[in-house]
Amino acid sequence: MRIAILGVGLIGGSIGLAVRREGWQVTGWGPRDESLQLAARRGAVDRIATNAVEACEGAELIVLAGPIRSLPDLMRAAARGARAGTVVTDVASVKGQVMRWAEELLPPNLCFVGGHPMAGKEVQGVGAADPDLLRGATYCLVPGPQPGMDRVEQLVSAVGARKLLVNPEDHDRAVAAASHLPFMVATALVEAVGDDLLDLAGAVAAGGFSDTSRVAQASPAMHADICNYNAPAVADMIARFEMALAGLKAKLAEPDIEADFTHAAQARQRWSQTRVSTSAEAKRVPELHAVPNASG
Amino acid sequence: MRIAILGVGLIGGSIGLAVRREGWQVTGWGPRDESLQLAARRGAVDRIATNAVEACEGAELIVLAGPIRSLPDLMRAAARGARAGTVVTDVASVKGQVMRWAEELLPPNLCFVGGHPMAGKEVQGVGAADPDLLRGATYCLVPGPQPGMDRVEQLVSAVGARKLLVNPEDHDRAVAAASHLPFMVATALVEAVGDDLLDLAGAVAAGGFSDTSRVAQASPAMHADICNYNAPAVADMIARFEMALAGLKAKLAEPDIEADFTHAAQARQRWSQTRVSTSAEAKRVPELHAVPNASG
Repeated sequence: MRIAILGVGLIGGSIGLAVRREGWQVTGWGPRDESLQLAARRGAVDRIATNAVEACEGAELIVLAGPIRSLPDLMRAAARGARAGTVVTDVASVKGQVMRWAEELLPPNLCFVGGHPMAGKEVQGVGAADPDLLRGATYCLVPGPQPGMDRVEQLVSAVGARKLLVNPEDHDRAVAAASHLPFMVATALVEAVGDDLLDLAGAVAAGGFSDTSRVAQASPAMHADICNYNAPAVADMIARFEMALAGLKAKLAEPDIEADFTHAAQARQRWSQTRVSTSAEAKRVPELHAVPNASG
Repeated sequence: MRIAILGVGLIGGSIGLAVRREGWQVTGWGPRDESLQLAARRGAVDRIATNAVEACEGAELIVLAGPIRSLPDLMRAAARGARAGTVVTDVASVKGQVMRWAEELLPPNLCFVGGHPMAGKEVQGVGAADPDLLRGATYCLVPGPQPGMDRVEQLVSAVGARKLLVNPEDHDRAVAAASHLPFMVATALVEAVGDDLLDLAGAVAAGGFSDTSRVAQASPAMHADICNYNAPAVADMIARFEMALAGLKAKLAEPDIEADFTHAAQARQRWSQTRVSTSAEAKRVPELHAVPNASG
């Protein structure tokens, strides 16, 4: 398979490393020359294109792996460079907006399938890319109006992920609940505690604060994009969260608040016991496998 | 040192194991005979008393390690059993209410010093007790009107913790920010996502949800006590959190929400870099040391 990756960062680079191991040919392009050179040295791409349009020429599959805000430009490049029948996919955390852009910006002779691999790391960039980052992870796929699903399924299989077919609305609500809301909550927690962290509160903060606030350190740019392009679903989830918190606040002095805590503790426990462990596996794997060196 | 521990659970049992290693004599009592027998088998106590009053007789230091709601009864027992000059301390997560109870319920010939070791585990009970649980942990101490601090400092030293002198108001505000608020937020997050966890949201939930919601699995009874007895400080912190979240919600569609995210990410990072790592150390240690077997 000849594949083009536009945006060779953590996810794009990890896909490149994984599919090259399967013998695929990877052409990479990205706006930062330094990252591209590193991607080549790390073996995430075979070849560097001089621009996004050129990268798409001759590709059978194009993976748009830049930030969400860059996707319209990358789609325009694909529209100019790709030949008819080429399959185009993305890796963005929101799908409704991306599917609308694809419909608007890609010609009907290209086949768009939305994609969202559920994996990440605290560090960004191709330097942290890992061929096993997506192994065992859930990989959401949103079918478009044209065919092309089979080629994207080959990609999912090549990186060792598990496909999950969803429609864009369900996807965006689910990730608002499971991913975007936790980030907003962690960020608001850090803002609320604020300067106290430099004082006594910081000294007595332990595992509870550490865990609950950890994701606030995730990429500000990525989460700004997520909020901007999934605002209605995130706002809905925040409203549900505000109601839940207000309900607890009203019962602070009542002993039977214990029943609410028990209910939540059991729900959390059920989730952690029954979930098909996806990202946890994907996260553990990099600790077991050595990151390949510059020779790939 | 002859010490009585009233309530031999995770914390009381860990203190018993640690000070017995230093050659202290430990008399234990608690309401559940089964736990007491296990405490004796695990070597957390030398001797089991038949009731709380008897446990206090002859002790130089009494550690009240039961749930917060049990402290008035335990103090009444100490008032009846302890001889003049005995030092009494507790391990509760709130200090204002406890200091008021001590003033009201203990005779002036007993010396009360409030205590709060900042360590825990997800599992409760003496079965999870560990002599190194408090090693490296911050141990808040609140002086009372009488002397007795030196004996409690010996305890802090014997368990390997680091003392931090605080007043009850500062303590309760700090733990509301650093510990009680994160628990409330994690619990509200689980409640808000709710039944979705059994559905698509549960399937796509990854590290962000897992970390941010983890502490919701902490002891419902303990946190009900904390809320009930630190309600004003917890309510204040929730109000600050609500304002921070409302501020973010109002900016969801604006690109410059990225600046807010950057601000929080940097504050979180500063905290994790500069904090004197207390609970993290205390948490790591149990993985390095084998839990002693039944022979102690």
